[in-house]
Amino acid sequence: MIIKYETLYNTFKEILISRKLSEDRANILAKIFADNTLDGVLSHGVNRFPRFISYIDKGEIDIDIVPETTFIFNGMVRMDGKRGIGPINAYIAMEKACELAKIYGISIVALANTNHWMRGGTYGYLACENNLIGICFSNTTANMVAYNASEPKLGNNPLVIGIPRENKAHVVLDFAISQYSYGKVAQTNLEEKKLDVPGGYDTKGNITNDPAEIIKSGCLLPIGYWKGSGLSLVLDLMATVLTAGNSVAKIKSFGDEVGLSQIFIAIDPNKANTKDMTNKLIDDVLSDFSSAKPFEGKRVSYPGENTIKRREANKASGVEIVDSVWDEIMALKKEH
Amino acid sequence: MIIKYETLYNTFKEILISRKLSEDRANILAKIFADNTLDGVLSHGVNRFPRFISYIDKGEIDIDIVPETTFIFNGMVRMDGKRGIGPINAYIAMEKACELAKIYGISIVALANTNHWMRGGTYGYLACENNLIGICFSNTTANMVAYNASEPKLGNNPLVIGIPRENKAHVVLDFAISQYSYGKVAQTNLEEKKLDVPGGYDTKGNITNDPAEIIKSGCLLPIGYWKGSGLSLVLDLMATVLTAGNSVAKIKSFGDEVGLSQIFIAIDPNKANTKDMTNKLIDDVLSDFSSAKPFEGKRVSYPGENTIKRREANKASGVEIVDSVWDEIMALKKEH
Repeated sequence: MIIKYETLYNTFKEILISRKLSEDRANILAKIFADNTLDGVLSHGVNRFPRFISYIDKGEIDIDIVPETTFIFNGMVRMDGKRGIGPINAYIAMEKACELAKIYGISIVALANTNHWMRGGTYGYLACENNLIGICFSNTTANMVAYNASEPKLGNNPLVIGIPRENKAHVVLDFAISQYSYGKVAQTNLEEKKLDVPGGYDTKGNITNDPAEIIKSGCLLPIGYWKGSGLSLVLDLMATVLTAGNSVAKIKSFGDEVGLSQIFIAIDPNKANTKDMTNKLIDDVLSDFSSAKPFEGKRVSYPGENTIKRREANKASGVEIVDSVWDEIMALKKEH
Repeated sequence: MIIKYETLYNTFKEILISRKLSEDRANILAKIFADNTLDGVLSHGVNRFPRFISYIDKGEIDIDIVPETTFIFNGMVRMDGKRGIGPINAYIAMEKACELAKIYGISIVALANTNHWMRGGTYGYLACENNLIGICFSNTTANMVAYNASEPKLGNNPLVIGIPRENKAHVVLDFAISQYSYGKVAQTNLEEKKLDVPGGYDTKGNITNDPAEIIKSGCLLPIGYWKGSGLSLVLDLMATVLTAGNSVAKIKSFGDEVGLSQIFIAIDPNKANTKDMTNKLIDDVLSDFSSAKPFEGKRVSYPGENTIKRREANKASGVEIVDSVWDEIMALKKEH
């Protein structure tokens, strides 16, 4: 089924309003879920929306919770997310970081006790739309092993870095520290294929690209092996210390992946530069990067480049959505 | 030959003073080269020292250059390194970031037009010794390929993140974005071995752990393939835009690896926490991390853990140094 962006947005908003969300909150959430869908991230867009609503319908999430500022010192803020709606908390935190970066040049908001932010890229794009560099990361439950370890003690702690461009073709890096998600490994196994690159250990500790072996061991590896292992750990340390919130280990002890710690940093590149300078510096780097000769049959692309292409194509012609998913969403409309 | 730390430090200092460096600068540099040696990073310590002095002796570097502050706005500073001594410039930049983080909570110093900082970890430890979280990165010349690319357009842009601990066993991540350095690939090739994990492309664009094939193609891969490819690019973009300095592409055009762009961020975790809180939060994360059961015959360690062990052992019994290297250093003493 092909659905236009406006229909997605309006439908999400109508359903959210029917669940008693305020107009403001419904606007933000409908935009996040519709934008993620438009960008081709359906797993954190339309496909995820029914589960999001089911948490509200079961009363598992208090829709009115507003993160509380528990500490502020110049461009440094700590907030308690009070286990409120993850994307709303993260949106508010990055907005605050943007506001403060415009005042101080650089800012940091540490958000404790929050929930899954859906797609991290959302908050990178939010900083970019404010003409700011945005850096954010979240910890997660323990879902990845350290290099040499046979049991998962690390989170795949997604890391986002957004670089704003005047033409809106922002460079937004958005990745988890595991080489592959568990979902990708499971899907590749179902398709009886091998992973393109090694993704985990087998049960004996050999590095493998066989998804069946990785599922058996439960050992997803970080990017760069020992390097990503260290990166995941220091992201968790920063998130935990700066929020005084929950670490990966603590979150794992909760069973459900809740009460996360997230960091939002914003930097204003146009305090010292004119906008034209910033744009030229970025354009020159990207133009050199894109001039790299690819291997035969391959393409070289910068983070966010394919997203923009998908976004534009989907905006023009609508997004292809699985019929049963859209039926589910239509049912959510009728339920209220 | 076994050399004690004090002898290393005093010898480096004497040689630097003999080359007309000021007392202050000789102290900083002697400490950096001696500490790197003590920590087992001989490549950026004693082994590198003769080359460093040869640049001075040939008049290729002006020893008195002081980075100039060209922009300051609250906790945000831009400096022009004027192609001065790399480790001195970086040291001054991180010291300034530390000073400002204590005032503002978070700070950033963007250092344009500098030279090789030797070991990035030095500046991570510097932040940690100030009880601050330190994040720094440098761009480099183009020495690594993007995912799918057949020619190097990316830098391996070393990234450092330091987390301070009261017991001084700081967690300091210090890595280049390439999976392996060119030196490691060349050494493995000489030993007629394979790399432990894939490190580059062969000439046809297949991912390989055969160092001979990687040397033929000249294509070192980033950590995490497409992920590190994006990370390297955004680090270069941030360094270039925030310094308004040279990008990887520009540096490559110079031929020599000079005029680098570097970023130094410091964050004070003890603005919102008591020191005891910070310590307990860190200790708990590390204790869970270290409890992970390793695969048979393997060890799990956090970034900096092995460094501390080497440092303590070397402090007690002296550092093993290749005879010819020490002879070369003794000769530098006599030359003046």
